[in-house]
Amino acid sequence: MIQTQTGAARQSRIHTAHGPVDTPAFMPVGTAGTVKAVPQDILENLGSENLGAQIILGNTYHLYLRPGHELVRKMGGLHKFMSWNRALLTDSGGFQVFSLSELRKVKEEGVSFRSHLDGTSHLFTPERSMEIQIALGADIVMAFDECTEYPAERERARASMEMTLRWAKRSKDYFEAHKHECPWADRGIGISGDREIGKSGEAVPAQPGAAAVHDPITKPTTPALFGIVQGGMYADLRRESAERTVELDFPGYAIGGLSVGESRPKTMEMIAAVLEILPKDKPRYVMGVGYPEEIVQYAAMGVDMMDCVLPTRAARHGLLFTSEGRINIKNARYAEDQGPPDPKCTCRVCHRYTRAYLRHLFVSAEPLAGVLNTVHNLAFYLDTMRSVRHAITLGDLSGILSGHVSLT
Amino acid sequence: MIQTQTGAARQSRIHTAHGPVDTPAFMPVGTAGTVKAVPQDILENLGSENLGAQIILGNTYHLYLRPGHELVRKMGGLHKFMSWNRALLTDSGGFQVFSLSELRKVKEEGVSFRSHLDGTSHLFTPERSMEIQIALGADIVMAFDECTEYPAERERARASMEMTLRWAKRSKDYFEAHKHECPWADRGIGISGDREIGKSGEAVPAQPGAAAVHDPITKPTTPALFGIVQGGMYADLRRESAERTVELDFPGYAIGGLSVGESRPKTMEMIAAVLEILPKDKPRYVMGVGYPEEIVQYAAMGVDMMDCVLPTRAARHGLLFTSEGRINIKNARYAEDQGPPDPKCTCRVCHRYTRAYLRHLFVSAEPLAGVLNTVHNLAFYLDTMRSVRHAITLGDLSGILSGHVSLT
Repeated sequence: MIQTQTGAARQSRIHTAHGPVDTPAFMPVGTAGTVKAVPQDILENLGSENLGAQIILGNTYHLYLRPGHELVRKMGGLHKFMSWNRALLTDSGGFQVFSLSELRKVKEEGVSFRSHLDGTSHLFTPERSMEIQIALGADIVMAFDECTEYPAERERARASMEMTLRWAKRSKDYFEAHKHECPWADRGIGISGDREIGKSGEAVPAQPGAAAVHDPITKPTTPALFGIVQGGMYADLRRESAERTVELDFPGYAIGGLSVGESRPKTMEMIAAVLEILPKDKPRYVMGVGYPEEIVQYAAMGVDMMDCVLPTRAARHGLLFTSEGRINIKNARYAEDQGPPDPKCTCRVCHRYTRAYLRHLFVSAEPLAGVLNTVHNLAFYLDTMRSVRHAITLGDLSGILSGHVSLT
Repeated sequence: MIQTQTGAARQSRIHTAHGPVDTPAFMPVGTAGTVKAVPQDILENLGSENLGAQIILGNTYHLYLRPGHELVRKMGGLHKFMSWNRALLTDSGGFQVFSLSELRKVKEEGVSFRSHLDGTSHLFTPERSMEIQIALGADIVMAFDECTEYPAERERARASMEMTLRWAKRSKDYFEAHKHECPWADRGIGISGDREIGKSGEAVPAQPGAAAVHDPITKPTTPALFGIVQGGMYADLRRESAERTVELDFPGYAIGGLSVGESRPKTMEMIAAVLEILPKDKPRYVMGVGYPEEIVQYAAMGVDMMDCVLPTRAARHGLLFTSEGRINIKNARYAEDQGPPDPKCTCRVCHRYTRAYLRHLFVSAEPLAGVLNTVHNLAFYLDTMRSVRHAITLGDLSGILSGHVSLT
């Protein structure tokens, strides 16, 4: 899948049934079927170059609890339900059970927990997570894993890693048997059973394994399942987890259980250990990171995909990421600042509004504050990744890594 | 100013320094320099015909308290501060002092009150209200009035009406002496002192009273001040108030103090009494109304301008106005409703999203709910006024008035 490589960094394109994803990619988080406060058409056109988000993330835990995966399936899947016709990735639900739910109990079968919304009891198993994600109809489905807590003793981290490996196998078995049930197989995009559906909705005879008739690029006809590497903060466990996950043979691999409280050098050490093992021709996804300088660093190390609530959550708290550093827009120094949020940014917010106006909106608790701050922060993150991809293509990441292109 | 008249109803165009306003017009309320939850570019392009809001309203009381009119003046006026280059109207602050502030005391000089934000003491006088509105730089400034409470005895209503008349005279005197101080006189739109500023910012010689060089239509070079008719719920007092306000000679007239608890027939009776008196060649503005069927009715009676928080506030509470009636989007019946919010509406929300999705956003308290609900409701109101203008042009309001075009 690699198109260009500069050192360890790779520039590539992942093809999904809902369009391409240029990597390294940052994926905005759309927790409950919405990237908080941002209308979908703005999300599509965040940047000046009319290249907005190509992929967003949905949270299985949230969507399962509300509105429920069966409702989403009935509505034609998450793409159709939320009117998002580009790529979607769903997490396994494991991390939110770990971080949000109450009375969590982990057993071999799965995780029982109580909803943070209404206290009702639920059970997530690898099979259940697959069933939910297939019902949601994500393009990329994540294996059900256990996010090892931090800190964790070595034996605890090993036991957790072993559980995640057994769950990965169960995830894959269920997924392979049911992936054709995803809702968009009936909507003219993929192959449903032994019939190929053309874009017009007309059924045409299909040759098993043949390229799609109507598209020069073979689009996937079912979702893809990614495995997840765990192993706590132990490099040897991480390597072992990576090796044994790769043996299960997934079309992409994630590194989970990071950014849970450890130091940044430790995060990098874990990522580096795992990247040595992961196959170079498959997408590599570090879950739940990070600050702008972090995502640049990890992309330079050879990571292809990242996601984080930081740009969206920080925006709602008035924290803006700019080429001049992070700014807290509620600060009195911006009260009469007629400059744009970021003088180097070409997003629709920086094009139109001043810091003085954004400050006024924020201190007045106006709902537009959350909208505009989020749009800018996402544009900054997506522009950052665009710059990284451009630098890889040019063969020189030194400028962006040395901070000549300041990102924080 | 009347272009077309159908019975009492009139279709016309008001020219402001920031563009035309086609009437009858509904003006979305942008309380604190933002129509709550709606980005300005969406407001500009609400409808399918790319004809969005031509004028919005700002609240003097709110903007005076936060961020402060002097700050807005320094930022170049409210148009520039909030990046809204179309027409703006500001109210006088009188109604919000009446409805929001604490410890209000009305004297001949003006109204002293405590801020609802921080309890600080303030005084609004006619002169102060003019000073604030000129600093904000509205295209249409409203005279400082007293909104008579409801119910009010006849003598109380008369005394309040007399006060409003004295305040109207003081408003006009101050306004005429200071209207050239509005911030946009320096921004290439109007005439500043004896120099005319071209659109390029280059100073060109001006002939006093001559039409603007760069525009076929003579644009106003200063704001316009509208008088306000009061008189409680007494038709004779309303008529007297109208006559004596007209004697003061304003370029437009508002009817205030309605929709304060009285029955709808009473509202209509007061409007009808006043419309008989007001000059036919000047804009007539009924403040603070109303439901869709109301604004159609008042437009049919000959009202040119209206404003109300209803479409925006109701949206944030999940109430949608549609051609099939009002719907409460949180209702369980919409959980699996794949239809658009309003099947006859062509707004960007109805074009893209389903009732099921909007219900999910609302019950999940997602910020996008407020954004999308507000955009739809405003599109519905503005489309309604567009239909009314079209019907007047065609010479037949019967369909829209009889409910063949259902509005509630």
